[in-house]
Amino acid sequence: MHDLPQVPLPDDEMREAALARQLRLTKPAGALGRLEELSGWASAVQGRCPPTRFQRPTVVIFAGDHGIAATARTSAYPSEVTAQMVLNFIAGGAAVNVLARQAGVSVRVLDVSVDAEPDYLDAIAPEVASHRIRRSSGSIDKEDALTSTEVHAAFELGRVIADQEIDSGADLLIPGDMGIGNTTPAATLTGLLTKLDASKVTGMGTGIDDRTWMRKCAAVRDAMHRGRADLGDPITLLARVGGADLAAMTGFLLQASIRKTPVILDGTISGACALVADRIDYRAKLWWLAGHRSTEPAHTAALNHLDLHPVIDYSMRLGEGTGALLALPVLQAATSLLAEMSTFDEAGVSEQDA
Amino acid sequence: MHDLPQVPLPDDEMREAALARQLRLTKPAGALGRLEELSGWASAVQGRCPPTRFQRPTVVIFAGDHGIAATARTSAYPSEVTAQMVLNFIAGGAAVNVLARQAGVSVRVLDVSVDAEPDYLDAIAPEVASHRIRRSSGSIDKEDALTSTEVHAAFELGRVIADQEIDSGADLLIPGDMGIGNTTPAATLTGLLTKLDASKVTGMGTGIDDRTWMRKCAAVRDAMHRGRADLGDPITLLARVGGADLAAMTGFLLQASIRKTPVILDGTISGACALVADRIDYRAKLWWLAGHRSTEPAHTAALNHLDLHPVIDYSMRLGEGTGALLALPVLQAATSLLAEMSTFDEAGVSEQDA
Repeated sequence: MHDLPQVPLPDDEMREAALARQLRLTKPAGALGRLEELSGWASAVQGRCPPTRFQRPTVVIFAGDHGIAATARTSAYPSEVTAQMVLNFIAGGAAVNVLARQAGVSVRVLDVSVDAEPDYLDAIAPEVASHRIRRSSGSIDKEDALTSTEVHAAFELGRVIADQEIDSGADLLIPGDMGIGNTTPAATLTGLLTKLDASKVTGMGTGIDDRTWMRKCAAVRDAMHRGRADLGDPITLLARVGGADLAAMTGFLLQASIRKTPVILDGTISGACALVADRIDYRAKLWWLAGHRSTEPAHTAALNHLDLHPVIDYSMRLGEGTGALLALPVLQAATSLLAEMSTFDEAGVSEQDA
Repeated sequence: MHDLPQVPLPDDEMREAALARQLRLTKPAGALGRLEELSGWASAVQGRCPPTRFQRPTVVIFAGDHGIAATARTSAYPSEVTAQMVLNFIAGGAAVNVLARQAGVSVRVLDVSVDAEPDYLDAIAPEVASHRIRRSSGSIDKEDALTSTEVHAAFELGRVIADQEIDSGADLLIPGDMGIGNTTPAATLTGLLTKLDASKVTGMGTGIDDRTWMRKCAAVRDAMHRGRADLGDPITLLARVGGADLAAMTGFLLQASIRKTPVILDGTISGACALVADRIDYRAKLWWLAGHRSTEPAHTAALNHLDLHPVIDYSMRLGEGTGALLALPVLQAATSLLAEMSTFDEAGVSEQDA
């Protein structure tokens, strides 16, 4: 970790310039509500006012399985669904694909730690599995998710992927997730980092019943116990009770900030990774926008802890980057309004009575 | 009114088919939250499942001035701003223009009752003022907004405009408003129809100070007193305490429903007109989606009374159709997801454990 550059700050002068410009646009002061604040954020992260529309937003989906899903049966779906959904992403049939097409956004999927044969993608898209760190992560209630070597490799993988996308022109990154059982490590990390009890961060995930919830809650409690000693060392924490997909996403979020590239966070998984990344460098969150609020209690806990306010609140709980993609048109609208609306002077419109 | 056809019902079988199809898509049941409900509404109003994206959404802005703004000084802006903003809409520099361009939506502006010289648009866009009902509406705290002849002409104008747009291919209508002082009649109508006191429906409008709010509240109270006897006759109510722009928008909303054309409502003004239209035919609201929630208290009162749940809640208070336009990408996303996502069978994805 000692070689990680410090995250730079967004440009607060441009944020101020944006808010000042809002006052000259042909509308009552403040009438665009939250959109005015978003236009300030866009100006700050782009370092210019008015900001431009984001030209190349990119979703990267980090797919991985979790031993806990099989050993403690914490999910409503079998682990084989993770690999099946990776194929669905590649075929373009998943929710994230539909929303990304609508928004003109590209989607990249990475098998970071899926529990499938090494060659299952060879005939279709071998590059998707070419970075795999391991086959599923450990069952975190009773064993480490990753070895020390693996966690560093996964974290670096996320950083490299962010670099690749930014170097290819991405000007906004969206982290997506796919992994049966992944809300269990996310709840564990969130409980530890926000200092909440397991019962306050364990949710219904894909739609489990009450009995499964009790099992999941016990697993989160056991995992939190295993991870508590590592709170001072975020990377070790990811090895202990996270997973390869989560470690990669954490590296991805941090590297985006280091590269001054804004991020729209998605739901529970990216919220947990954001908490870990925030622990590593508290400036990183200045580059992040909370896309939506998931119904999972861990997500609300993470948003509160990070003091991030979601753009969308639609009772969604799908992951994949879907919540973030719904927020994107709102962010684009905020940038367009600031850039394209006429000012009072330009339009010859009278200003407010003194 | 006796010649107004009854509003038909949306297709509930298609709504049910949509919700059944949601269960077969490759995601946990219910994971798309509010979007699933929206896909059901889209299927019901289109009469088909899956629904298609809306191809020709159209904004129609009803512009009009209100005597109350001058006589009781209830606004932070002078009345001349209404005409200036009509010119701004025509030039494409207002917020509604920016959002409509982003969404690929056309904008039509109508001078229904602007307080400007009859020829102010002759050199630019004479058709915009060619339907004008009168120059400003009366000051509703002490006189009728419109004569009986005028209110019927305005109401019919709104119906004709809806017919024109639908006959030209519009498959979704968005009512926009512009008029200094227009939240005063909107608050009056809302107070009367939701049975709330003037102080509960009078808001800060364009951003007035406390002293102006007290004056506005007194004007709303006086106007509510003048209108109370006409609660049983919605068209007379519009003449007494509404305005030509509001009467036209009310006809527009009803005619859209009669023509089985869905509507995304905007803010406080369309909320008040929706209340009046609902009084005329309670089936009409089944064709309406609440686009957003304005910060004006009258708007929340109207939404509650109509039992409509806004898609967006961003503390906006601009009107023009801007709140509805922000909701449009969400509605389009909901239709696309239902139409384009793979089913479990198609994608070979395992379903939930029994």
